[in-house]
Amino acid sequence: MDHEDLSEARQLLGYPEGSVGRRMTPHYASVREDMTVGEALNEIRQQAQDSETLNMIYVTDAQGRLLDDVRLRAFIMADPGSQVRELLGGVHHALSAFDRQEKAVTMMRELDYFALPVADSNGALVGIITADDVLDVSEEEATEDIHKSAAVGPIDGDYKRTPIWTIYMRRVSWLVLLIFVNILSGAGIAAHEDLIHSVVSLVFFLPLLIACGGNAGAQASTLIIRAMALDQVRNKDYWFLLFKEFATSLALGLTMACAVSLVAWWRSGVQVAVVVTLSMMAVVIVGNFIGMSLPFLLRRLRMDPASASGPLVTSMADIIGVLVYLGIAQSMLGGMR
Amino acid sequence: MDHEDLSEARQLLGYPEGSVGRRMTPHYASVREDMTVGEALNEIRQQAQDSETLNMIYVTDAQGRLLDDVRLRAFIMADPGSQVRELLGGVHHALSAFDRQEKAVTMMRELDYFALPVADSNGALVGIITADDVLDVSEEEATEDIHKSAAVGPIDGDYKRTPIWTIYMRRVSWLVLLIFVNILSGAGIAAHEDLIHSVVSLVFFLPLLIACGGNAGAQASTLIIRAMALDQVRNKDYWFLLFKEFATSLALGLTMACAVSLVAWWRSGVQVAVVVTLSMMAVVIVGNFIGMSLPFLLRRLRMDPASASGPLVTSMADIIGVLVYLGIAQSMLGGMR
Repeated sequence: MDHEDLSEARQLLGYPEGSVGRRMTPHYASVREDMTVGEALNEIRQQAQDSETLNMIYVTDAQGRLLDDVRLRAFIMADPGSQVRELLGGVHHALSAFDRQEKAVTMMRELDYFALPVADSNGALVGIITADDVLDVSEEEATEDIHKSAAVGPIDGDYKRTPIWTIYMRRVSWLVLLIFVNILSGAGIAAHEDLIHSVVSLVFFLPLLIACGGNAGAQASTLIIRAMALDQVRNKDYWFLLFKEFATSLALGLTMACAVSLVAWWRSGVQVAVVVTLSMMAVVIVGNFIGMSLPFLLRRLRMDPASASGPLVTSMADIIGVLVYLGIAQSMLGGMR
Repeated sequence: MDHEDLSEARQLLGYPEGSVGRRMTPHYASVREDMTVGEALNEIRQQAQDSETLNMIYVTDAQGRLLDDVRLRAFIMADPGSQVRELLGGVHHALSAFDRQEKAVTMMRELDYFALPVADSNGALVGIITADDVLDVSEEEATEDIHKSAAVGPIDGDYKRTPIWTIYMRRVSWLVLLIFVNILSGAGIAAHEDLIHSVVSLVFFLPLLIACGGNAGAQASTLIIRAMALDQVRNKDYWFLLFKEFATSLALGLTMACAVSLVAWWRSGVQVAVVVTLSMMAVVIVGNFIGMSLPFLLRRLRMDPASASGPLVTSMADIIGVLVYLGIAQSMLGGMR
């Protein structure tokens, strides 16, 4: 973009933040359909110095509307006396300058092109977006999603050079918000204070159980969010994936319950072991359910599914974990008091 | 890659998994330095049909060694009678077929090219890697890192079509491993069972405090891991970032301690409030320290820093959280028994 002058920059800035218009370059080679191939090759030669790619030549009508993108090789191999319009294939792919940048990533991935033409609302060719720009968009989007996965607001540019104050601001809001979510876990415990007082060894397994529910949930939300970002998962897939994730969580829960049952038996006897084993099954299944559902819920509410971060899912699973564990313990051990 | 025949595929498979050789295409246009520009243009015209890009023409010596990549426009604008070697700039960038694919992403991001030449160990040109392939590599790498961030083994391809058994296998090993890490938290609690028995209200804040340490740690590890993946952070930056992250965590810890102190005071009185406030400061700073240090440690051990997943960092922060919280409580409230 270094060879763009200020007037171009201003023109590009007319498009909304995050739009294709902000990323496109006006440095492309285009010819009109009413030229001969020989005239077109002359035109291309003149535009060559100032074009970011010569793989594709963009063909427009007299009004500048994009008709097709044609490979340079087609011009080179055609009879110079023939008409450009004979080279047109009829089908072409174009972005709107107002499309979101992510659309360029998806389209380029599907088409395996190095450059995509960009049209304004009248269909007039206004620029191209090239593969190296799309690569930048793709990496920025991935960075944003990765940061969000840990409940960090998006940090642009080099992390090492980002001021401490900026990093603080991107991190603090979620951390403080999560305190109030986590206090609900405490409230769940407070409701069973008598039980804990009489069977203190229950506390031994508390961090373990809530962590396992949270871990399973964070795994599920992460898988769903990434699949959504890659356009592999749509809203209508919810029920199918609910079934699939339920089956997975059942298998995971069984495995983890087996692993923990022996420890619990050895540490705290049969009764606590039964409570812990059942609780493990339950918290893994419920944590997984929360993790897989939250991204769908957020998307329904027209919010970013990536906001279903690991810390948020973990905190929600914590609350359920406390309630499930102490609820099961209460009903099975309550009589011990 | 659809126009590559089997013999080519076999040739490509000679390179190790994850190498540039596996991604490159042999469909490029190359000319020899001892041709005239006119001869070269003829040669290019013949190769045009079978080349993925014509932006760059690769110039080799008689032995096939890559000398330079030259833009097609330079050929078009040069005198047809002049020598190709007059167009050579002397400096060019090339990948080795044995380089890791990530290197192609980094190089393409820096150079803003659409294609990079690939040479074998003798410097002979063997293929090119194009921007759309690099885009695929970049997205696959991001997916792998995102999955790892939630302690999920890499799942290739479409998540929706991945069998339940595969998803189970990619998830279960870390989940079970983390059980044994989390049991250490329980052991920390067991060591203070008497204290809990006498001040049960301490348990109220336990999930909150360990969650906050874990959240801060997961944020830090995620920021560091992504910055490492983007080559923004090297091993030598550790001490600088340690200072920076310490300052950030101090600010975060202070903010979160303020937020929780009022709740603790209202809920459990001044003494528990002081314990909870001090513990919050400590768990945030220590959790953050673990989160930022673990990726560096893993890289030192020649392991993937992305293995410092949210769940792993959270579980480690949990143990420290329990020890710090109950340790502070013991020393301040121990006399209450």
